[in-house]
Amino acid sequence: MSYQEAIDEVYEMIKNLPKEGQVANYIPELAKVNQDIFAVHLLTVEGDNYHLGENEHIFSVQSIVKVLTLTLALEFEKDKLWDRVNMEPSGNPFNSVVQLEYENGIPRNPFINAGAIVVCDILLDHLKDPAENFLGFVRRLTNNPKVSYNKRISESEKANGFRNYALAHFMKAQHNIKHKIDDVMDFYFAICSLELSCRDACHAFILFANRGKLLTGERVITVSQSKRINAIMQTCGFYDQAGLFSYKIGLPGKSGVGGGIVAVHPGNYVITVYSPRLNNKGNSVLGMKFLEEFTTITEVSIF
Amino acid sequence: MSYQEAIDEVYEMIKNLPKEGQVANYIPELAKVNQDIFAVHLLTVEGDNYHLGENEHIFSVQSIVKVLTLTLALEFEKDKLWDRVNMEPSGNPFNSVVQLEYENGIPRNPFINAGAIVVCDILLDHLKDPAENFLGFVRRLTNNPKVSYNKRISESEKANGFRNYALAHFMKAQHNIKHKIDDVMDFYFAICSLELSCRDACHAFILFANRGKLLTGERVITVSQSKRINAIMQTCGFYDQAGLFSYKIGLPGKSGVGGGIVAVHPGNYVITVYSPRLNNKGNSVLGMKFLEEFTTITEVSIF
Amino acid sequence: MSYQEAIDEVYEMIKNLPKEGQVANYIPELAKVNQDIFAVHLLTVEGDNYHLGENEHIFSVQSIVKVLTLTLALEFEKDKLWDRVNMEPSGNPFNSVVQLEYENGIPRNPFINAGAIVVCDILLDHLKDPAENFLGFVRRLTNNPKVSYNKRISESEKANGFRNYALAHFMKAQHNIKHKIDDVMDFYFAICSLELSCRDACHAFILFANRGKLLTGERVITVSQSKRINAIMQTCGFYDQAGLFSYKIGLPGKSGVGGGIVAVHPGNYVITVYSPRLNNKGNSVLGMKFLEEFTTITEVSIF
Amino acid sequence: MSYQEAIDEVYEMIKNLPKEGQVANYIPELAKVNQDIFAVHLLTVEGDNYHLGENEHIFSVQSIVKVLTLTLALEFEKDKLWDRVNMEPSGNPFNSVVQLEYENGIPRNPFINAGAIVVCDILLDHLKDPAENFLGFVRRLTNNPKVSYNKRISESEKANGFRNYALAHFMKAQHNIKHKIDDVMDFYFAICSLELSCRDACHAFILFANRGKLLTGERVITVSQSKRINAIMQTCGFYDQAGLFSYKIGLPGKSGVGGGIVAVHPGNYVITVYSPRLNNKGNSVLGMKFLEEFTTITEVSIF
Repeated sequence: MSYQEAIDEVYEMIKNLPKEGQVANYIPELAKVNQDIFAVHLLTVEGDNYHLGENEHIFSVQSIVKVLTLTLALEFEKDKLWDRVNMEPSGNPFNSVVQLEYENGIPRNPFINAGAIVVCDILLDHLKDPAENFLGFVRRLTNNPKVSYNKRISESEKANGFRNYALAHFMKAQHNIKHKIDDVMDFYFAICSLELSCRDACHAFILFANRGKLLTGERVITVSQSKRINAIMQTCGFYDQAGLFSYKIGLPGKSGVGGGIVAVHPGNYVITVYSPRLNNKGNSVLGMKFLEEFTTITEVSIF
Repeated sequence: MSYQEAIDEVYEMIKNLPKEGQVANYIPELAKVNQDIFAVHLLTVEGDNYHLGENEHIFSVQSIVKVLTLTLALEFEKDKLWDRVNMEPSGNPFNSVVQLEYENGIPRNPFINAGAIVVCDILLDHLKDPAENFLGFVRRLTNNPKVSYNKRISESEKANGFRNYALAHFMKAQHNIKHKIDDVMDFYFAICSLELSCRDACHAFILFANRGKLLTGERVITVSQSKRINAIMQTCGFYDQAGLFSYKIGLPGKSGVGGGIVAVHPGNYVITVYSPRLNNKGNSVLGMKFLEEFTTITEVSIF
Repeated sequence: MSYQEAIDEVYEMIKNLPKEGQVANYIPELAKVNQDIFAVHLLTVEGDNYHLGENEHIFSVQSIVKVLTLTLALEFEKDKLWDRVNMEPSGNPFNSVVQLEYENGIPRNPFINAGAIVVCDILLDHLKDPAENFLGFVRRLTNNPKVSYNKRISESEKANGFRNYALAHFMKAQHNIKHKIDDVMDFYFAICSLELSCRDACHAFILFANRGKLLTGERVITVSQSKRINAIMQTCGFYDQAGLFSYKIGLPGKSGVGGGIVAVHPGNYVITVYSPRLNNKGNSVLGMKFLEEFTTITEVSIF
Repeated sequence: MSYQEAIDEVYEMIKNLPKEGQVANYIPELAKVNQDIFAVHLLTVEGDNYHLGENEHIFSVQSIVKVLTLTLALEFEKDKLWDRVNMEPSGNPFNSVVQLEYENGIPRNPFINAGAIVVCDILLDHLKDPAENFLGFVRRLTNNPKVSYNKRISESEKANGFRNYALAHFMKAQHNIKHKIDDVMDFYFAICSLELSCRDACHAFILFANRGKLLTGERVITVSQSKRINAIMQTCGFYDQAGLFSYKIGLPGKSGVGGGIVAVHPGNYVITVYSPRLNNKGNSVLGMKFLEEFTTITEVSIF
């Protein structure tokens, strides 16, 4: 069965499922999305594209971007990065602040908010115009100069981001934030507001399927770094459902509360699914379901 | 480079490293082992064996056995098992009881002690003579009728296992233990006292590399179950270093405080390393180091 | 206004309040009580008695007895007791096990279950036949040879007391329980099943109002010990409502999930109220209300 | 024995004790104090003064001021205040953020930092020029127009107060802070920088010994409010040593990391001790010791 056939067949299986879940509504801007949009895009390391639905519709990537900030920070810092952020799964969300307290301000991993804020703080050491420079990096990966941030989203996040500010202050108290909190948080809210289409997201993540190289052959990170970022996606990529995703889908990946999920089949392809209704853990309901069925019928798994 | 060459070469790299770590000493019996034994065994799905050191020396597998009890329980219960134990990584050990309290007595995963105790409770529903029946299962996997429990170890664990009894009572209070606590705990301490050599351990785990089948071709679990157990090993197999193991080694695996580590390369092989000195997270220091170097020079990773 | 007038007047104020709260039902035996019994008894240091309702009806004192075990243990151990149990309020109940973990198995105070279990363990060092000897102590205080335990209650508690067993095992793991857990817990469940009437309870506690002496003039504890036990009742006597009780009522006291509350006005009197419907913190609804109004109209407070 | 004799005698007992403890050094300004100053002042409800040492030396009252902000807020809000801050002891400091999380942003009591920040937020509803108006209130209580804030202290606290900012943001995220965080925190840091002498502190607290009235007879709060604030001091006034203070000293009181302790003997007097070396719980070592011995030899206790 070809990838396109598999995509089409799985879509037939799930398209009439009852509409479950809620779009993220902790900020007004995110709540405004069209709840019924569904899109899939699959990009192979050979450069072949397969898709279904509105694969060029842009959506707010939210936490998905944290894989890319980690990638850039690892380029700059190498394994020295791990002095300031751990790489272990985080347990239930209730424990986030407890763990910061217990572990002296070192976040559990770079994909929880506290960890991503530390990564932003680190990037401020290396980037002259952080938001612009990072956007340049994403445009280079996606080869799409139109990729951009959404200012309304970032401002809305900022106006409501008290818990994130609390985490930043908490880590500053424990000496794990070096820059001014406002500078760090402005950068953090900017990157989370990045908008990509499913197609863009596949291009942005193809280096993780392609052992560190873009489709052009240009190397961005080493083979080893590529494997290691996949490993972190596998253990930490889905909030408190990393284990479930690993169990049901068997691929490394990363989700965002915007409704997107990117999954990587190392050596083969990247697949991105978008559907904005979320389960109570913050992961796209239909996105999870689609990937579960897709990996089942294509018998794909890294395990 | 052949597997044997790789094993030999890595051993040369690490054999003169400073001796770090401590053998488990929370029970006297475990503290008595010869600290300097080192052994490796690799078994491919084609049935080829490669090894170094005392690969037939038996050691206390401790938590490694939890993969096998999970396997047997999954055979009996299928996904209904997951009503009583979760499959998410557990975060730092400090939180173990907190999480049980917060999550109503449902352990985070089947590899932490609380989870393995629940799995034992479930197996009591299905096994007439639990310790004997389970031993039969392990002998069938290993094709070694001499495999056995160590009664001194299990009695020593039992006499000192107050924290494990506390977990069992705690879960009983939350209605997640059905059988009598003494019955459950006797079985739990028995299985943890299982002794295997590196060779045995490879045979016991080969089904996870071989898509659910023994080398004889006999199917024990489905392809899907095999993948899923690998997925759980990947996210939960190394106490609070699952992320680090995933990052450095890139294979699913399981460690025990006896000093053993079993790692699975799905579709290819199982490798078991034994060295009893542990780091402060309870994982074999040299075992971790050996596997890190071995997967580096053989360029192996599921990612 | 005389004490009797005050008692009568407050009863008129509260007798027609809507019936709120639930009797303790975590064990069947406790759930069987007559929910509508109401009783008050006040005993002055001069030996005068005032009462209303069924003041000779016996009820399960439950945690109220912990003041008496503490008293006896303090007699034996003096301030050395505080090496094994702290005297600080305990915060919300969710944290009980967390705090045990964080504070190395030293319970926050002698009135939470963990603390009372440690006190029982200590008493086992000093009492030959613990349950009988302690009962003798209570009979001496109350001058009532009929005071006794309720075997059905203690057996019911024991059969359902998994959480208490969990606490005991947890503290044993941290070396803060010396005796066999079964011996400690049998004693613990026995003392909690003590039954007293409101009249008995006043006599049992009169030494705390009378600077350490019984009404006969017999000294049981020193003036200083008496003050100090009152201080602990003030800060720790009402589960997670010690602050509220202190704020609204302004007297040291102790409540039990059997529905009793004993309050001490140092230098003046002891008052005991019994009404078995409890609020969600485990304190008698009408008992709290009665004492609040009683101390308001009599303008009594230690503050 | 007169109060002056008791003060002198206790001073003789403790003046040669080894110098234990550390002055607060989390901000440079506090670390600069003269570690060897010792002062006591006692003011009776009749207006008599007894003192020893540098009783007019001003020191940073820090948390002691929280009793006064609570008093003013209770005047404005009455018991409605308790919708936004609880009145229960807080357990160990490790749990502060956990409890905020578990209890939906409602701090345990008005004397922990989170609670005092909420009280400041409430006062912003009622005061036009908060810092000035509150200072006016303190000057009225002390009848000392020279009482003032220390700008260097408040600025130093602010520049290092990341943890307090974290708490404020955290509670803002849970909707328990209404005003702008910067406005709330500027006010909070101002009030904590208040400087009083032992004499001033006695005058500021005499209303709690005098059933709500100043020595002039002017009523500030009701009798009931006075009793209730004493009750809160008793259960929550000494960080994680409220129980110990209650046990050893038997009076309501409040300490601050500046090294001051104010204790209230309702109906009789206020006593303030100053000595800046702190124990590891943040309470003045010599202050605690002095009060323990003083209440012992004068046989004073509310119990």
